[in-house]
Amino acid sequence: MTQTANPEAAGAAGSPADRRTEMPAPRHRAGKLPGRQDWSTWPHYNAAKAGFRGYWYPVTYSSHVGDRPVRIKLLGEDIAIVRDKGTVYALANRCPHRGVPLTYGNKQFPGTLSCVYHGWTFDLKSGDLCAVITDGPESRLCGKVTQPTYDVEERLGMVWIYVGDGEEPHPIDDQLPEELVENPAVVGSRIQPREGNWRFACENGYDEGHAKFLHRTALWRLFKAMPVWNITRIEKRGRWIFRVQEEQHWEADFPGVGKWTSLAWYKQKPSGKVSNIGNVGSQREPNPVIAKQGFPGFVSVAMPGILRVVYPTFIHYEFYTPVDEDNHLYVGVMANFSKGIQTIPFYVKYLGAVRWLFHGQFSSQDKWMVEMTDAPPEKLYRPDASLLQWRKLAEDVTEERIERLAELGLAPADAQQEDS
Amino acid sequence: MTQTANPEAAGAAGSPADRRTEMPAPRHRAGKLPGRQDWSTWPHYNAAKAGFRGYWYPVTYSSHVGDRPVRIKLLGEDIAIVRDKGTVYALANRCPHRGVPLTYGNKQFPGTLSCVYHGWTFDLKSGDLCAVITDGPESRLCGKVTQPTYDVEERLGMVWIYVGDGEEPHPIDDQLPEELVENPAVVGSRIQPREGNWRFACENGYDEGHAKFLHRTALWRLFKAMPVWNITRIEKRGRWIFRVQEEQHWEADFPGVGKWTSLAWYKQKPSGKVSNIGNVGSQREPNPVIAKQGFPGFVSVAMPGILRVVYPTFIHYEFYTPVDEDNHLYVGVMANFSKGIQTIPFYVKYLGAVRWLFHGQFSSQDKWMVEMTDAPPEKLYRPDASLLQWRKLAEDVTEERIERLAELGLAPADAQQEDS
Amino acid sequence: MTQTANPEAAGAAGSPADRRTEMPAPRHRAGKLPGRQDWSTWPHYNAAKAGFRGYWYPVTYSSHVGDRPVRIKLLGEDIAIVRDKGTVYALANRCPHRGVPLTYGNKQFPGTLSCVYHGWTFDLKSGDLCAVITDGPESRLCGKVTQPTYDVEERLGMVWIYVGDGEEPHPIDDQLPEELVENPAVVGSRIQPREGNWRFACENGYDEGHAKFLHRTALWRLFKAMPVWNITRIEKRGRWIFRVQEEQHWEADFPGVGKWTSLAWYKQKPSGKVSNIGNVGSQREPNPVIAKQGFPGFVSVAMPGILRVVYPTFIHYEFYTPVDEDNHLYVGVMANFSKGIQTIPFYVKYLGAVRWLFHGQFSSQDKWMVEMTDAPPEKLYRPDASLLQWRKLAEDVTEERIERLAELGLAPADAQQEDS
Repeated sequence: MTQTANPEAAGAAGSPADRRTEMPAPRHRAGKLPGRQDWSTWPHYNAAKAGFRGYWYPVTYSSHVGDRPVRIKLLGEDIAIVRDKGTVYALANRCPHRGVPLTYGNKQFPGTLSCVYHGWTFDLKSGDLCAVITDGPESRLCGKVTQPTYDVEERLGMVWIYVGDGEEPHPIDDQLPEELVENPAVVGSRIQPREGNWRFACENGYDEGHAKFLHRTALWRLFKAMPVWNITRIEKRGRWIFRVQEEQHWEADFPGVGKWTSLAWYKQKPSGKVSNIGNVGSQREPNPVIAKQGFPGFVSVAMPGILRVVYPTFIHYEFYTPVDEDNHLYVGVMANFSKGIQTIPFYVKYLGAVRWLFHGQFSSQDKWMVEMTDAPPEKLYRPDASLLQWRKLAEDVTEERIERLAELGLAPADAQQEDS
Repeated sequence: MTQTANPEAAGAAGSPADRRTEMPAPRHRAGKLPGRQDWSTWPHYNAAKAGFRGYWYPVTYSSHVGDRPVRIKLLGEDIAIVRDKGTVYALANRCPHRGVPLTYGNKQFPGTLSCVYHGWTFDLKSGDLCAVITDGPESRLCGKVTQPTYDVEERLGMVWIYVGDGEEPHPIDDQLPEELVENPAVVGSRIQPREGNWRFACENGYDEGHAKFLHRTALWRLFKAMPVWNITRIEKRGRWIFRVQEEQHWEADFPGVGKWTSLAWYKQKPSGKVSNIGNVGSQREPNPVIAKQGFPGFVSVAMPGILRVVYPTFIHYEFYTPVDEDNHLYVGVMANFSKGIQTIPFYVKYLGAVRWLFHGQFSSQDKWMVEMTDAPPEKLYRPDASLLQWRKLAEDVTEERIERLAELGLAPADAQQEDS
Repeated sequence: MTQTANPEAAGAAGSPADRRTEMPAPRHRAGKLPGRQDWSTWPHYNAAKAGFRGYWYPVTYSSHVGDRPVRIKLLGEDIAIVRDKGTVYALANRCPHRGVPLTYGNKQFPGTLSCVYHGWTFDLKSGDLCAVITDGPESRLCGKVTQPTYDVEERLGMVWIYVGDGEEPHPIDDQLPEELVENPAVVGSRIQPREGNWRFACENGYDEGHAKFLHRTALWRLFKAMPVWNITRIEKRGRWIFRVQEEQHWEADFPGVGKWTSLAWYKQKPSGKVSNIGNVGSQREPNPVIAKQGFPGFVSVAMPGILRVVYPTFIHYEFYTPVDEDNHLYVGVMANFSKGIQTIPFYVKYLGAVRWLFHGQFSSQDKWMVEMTDAPPEKLYRPDASLLQWRKLAEDVTEERIERLAELGLAPADAQQEDS
């Protein structure tokens, strides 16, 4: 496509003398898109097409993993997971003998997984080749071959896998939202495989700009107005960065173009004050556990792609698990900090409304945009300050990780290899 | 495949002494295909995989373009077209913000198109970013960003778009067949997306050789005989080249092989004289407008791929619109130069027969061949003089265009970029 | 995936001094896969992705080839086959004129095939262009263009095609199993297009290890036990290599893992002696023709991928015809050396059981594995001695062929070209 940069800028490449004689002609119907549009400012982020290594990722529901192996793909890696005596184990899925996936095999002996083709049998815990059925008990390969394995944990009713570069993983609880580790909570969750790069999914989640326009047509917002535009700042607290609302504008008149608002007679009127706990404009009293957190803003994000959206009576989380460069898992979790009988209203609300309207139709608008997003090139605007800060966070945290690995004599896997 | 060239020719590459000692062995079952088989004689034509820039192309029916944007692909470019107050506008479809197609958006203000994701709003006429809804009325990007746009016209009930290199387009009427511009006409048309490169479609249309053999089985020809072979010359008149029949042979006896004819007792007998107005062998009196044109031949072609086939009472046109390297639009137009009540028999004939037999089943044989054609390599034969002249026309006209662009200080888009 | 080689081996690459300071860190959860895992020992085999040239390959049932051309793909080559006066002919399928497949055409004259597009007509026997219908009887191309052709034979109810490098083919009977050439036999056969490289199919067929484990669940084996592991040697006799059983172990106790056997109360007990004629453990008297062959082992293989599995009363053959790099034909043939009325029980057994249980469900387990196999990299084990010998056979025989070609002044087609 003939999408030309600003002609003046292009001309500047030549010397002054050249410019006089080779002045580029004014082009009819040419486009104009000033400034840099690539991701070179964030080299680690740019390279993390298939995800950042060194984190725990939720990959499936705990209830989906039993005695039969389950095949998953995570950061482009093919992984077999299987439960044995209550514990979930994860191995590289490619049998080193002839490349057949171990997930087609099954458990011929306790604590092991055997390849369907020739009965190569691996210890689930260590990955060691502990028997080769068709080679007899004296097989000389036993003890010489070890299948790569992965650390596994279970939290929030899901199986989490750590993908690293040979280091010991950090405790998973250091990575989960603190309030979920420290307080009893009841959760409703939805795991959905989605097309599109995980970074577009995460950026969409933390993006300050889109909700007010894209989601204005969602049923979830049918009776609630959204601002036209906001003034927002980003505040870092620990490993999280928060979007803090400073101004909300409910109507706007665009010069020479027209007026725009999402207010309507059938929608709830905004409260008039800028709200940062709970949804925009909400007047409800927050749940005490949520109030105690003292979150400075409505929406926050942390590595490796954990979104937290705080409502007065529950918190919504999104985990974006990279499957490969072109696919991710959307893991939506709604948590309520109630106990015992008081959890019933949450279940009713989640199963009766939240799951369908919020984790369903509202979120499917995000799904659609993530599939369509195609950047770089991109041209960011003021509300994208949220994206810039998120990318900077990813960049800084990754720099620190590389230093920690170097102290251990380890190096991160080459980003190019992850591409293949 | 082991398709070897003529062994003698291959041997000639070595020196005489080499040839004596390294004489290539005669190969069992080897093929033989003498002469050059590439397209290096026509470098511009060879490069124009995705179409020639600098022309108007029909892209859809006018009636299909209304208030909702329509997505089209033309010469590999992704384009949004939308109608506003009766006029059709065309913009590059990729929102420069995050790469989402503008065709998913809609008109939030008169004369504009807003991206569905964040409400970036473009003026349809100029492509200027005139409002960014979620950035408020003071957005600093307005006036700095311009979306590339395309010139648009409507003719023959269709929307036409000009794809150029930054030059002002020539008037569309200079490109349409003259008789359609100067005379009232009633048309029936069919637009069909087809697989295969646009050049194969155009070459198939102008190809002197295939009709007599491939189409002998078409219902359209069921009661009309076709010659076995012709002697034809190519005559250039203005921007058109015409195939002029000099001899028509209705029966042939191939030495050592057998006799062949398409004559049959149930088919109309040929007139006995060589016909160049109207279909081969027709004895009908031509329509006065058609007669007045004084076309020297039955079939003619002009850049950028406009075919004209003259029948006694109507003219059939084919426009081959390049979608990308592997797809094109077949745009078949049947025109009748009648007025008022006299157009009724044409409608009856077109809707009752022509559309199904000619624009349908007959043309689907061409569609099939265009999908299958795979050249170069190719080995042309005498009747392909029509193709050679068409390629030469494309080459010469493109040379002239490049000179005109150079005078304007413009350069054509790199052919390699169009490939990607 | 973080599949690291043995750290010690990797460290050895540096100098002793380097090793002290740059000792690689012990990696958490790292895999271990010692030794070489590529195919560099067998360069011809490695290159023969799309098959070995210089052989006859079965491509379809004889009964499927009649007056209308049939399109087949063999070693990546596109071929038209057609029957004329009882004889089957094969030509390169790409019409040299414009690249349209000749299989869309038909026979316009006896002993010829005409392209559907412009009537280019080729002599089936020589490939010579003998008429160009739309160019008339005097076409100057006749005698100048020759389409490459292929040698064709019919055996075992199938059409066989020779793909070579310009040499005269060897007699097909020199390539077929000797016992099928010398004795009357009745055969049942199944041709099935399958995904996966032909080498994985052939290796799966000759593989000593998998049958006992993978096929233990096949209906064909339901009432027959399989050994757990064997001791086997490979014996070369003429152009065949045989797997000769030396020991069979019906039960095994894997240290620290557990016991394993396929014996069960409802299965036939093994005979107690090692059997090499007929299936493992069979006590039936062999058919006199089979007994006379004196096969040293149950399973044998010859180039270019012919498997022979000897049962007491019939022999099963598999021919792996390379279609392209990613597809092959599975050609299963069951032969019984009976005559006249005595063939009836074979037909009953073949059509009533063998076709469905053996050529069907049992063989579909192999199909599944061949689709899944992904090597190199690979880590072979003791029973893979059978694969090593097969690859060595392919390598040696190919070396000899290249020498024979060189004496004729011919060179094999470049392996890289076959890839494309």
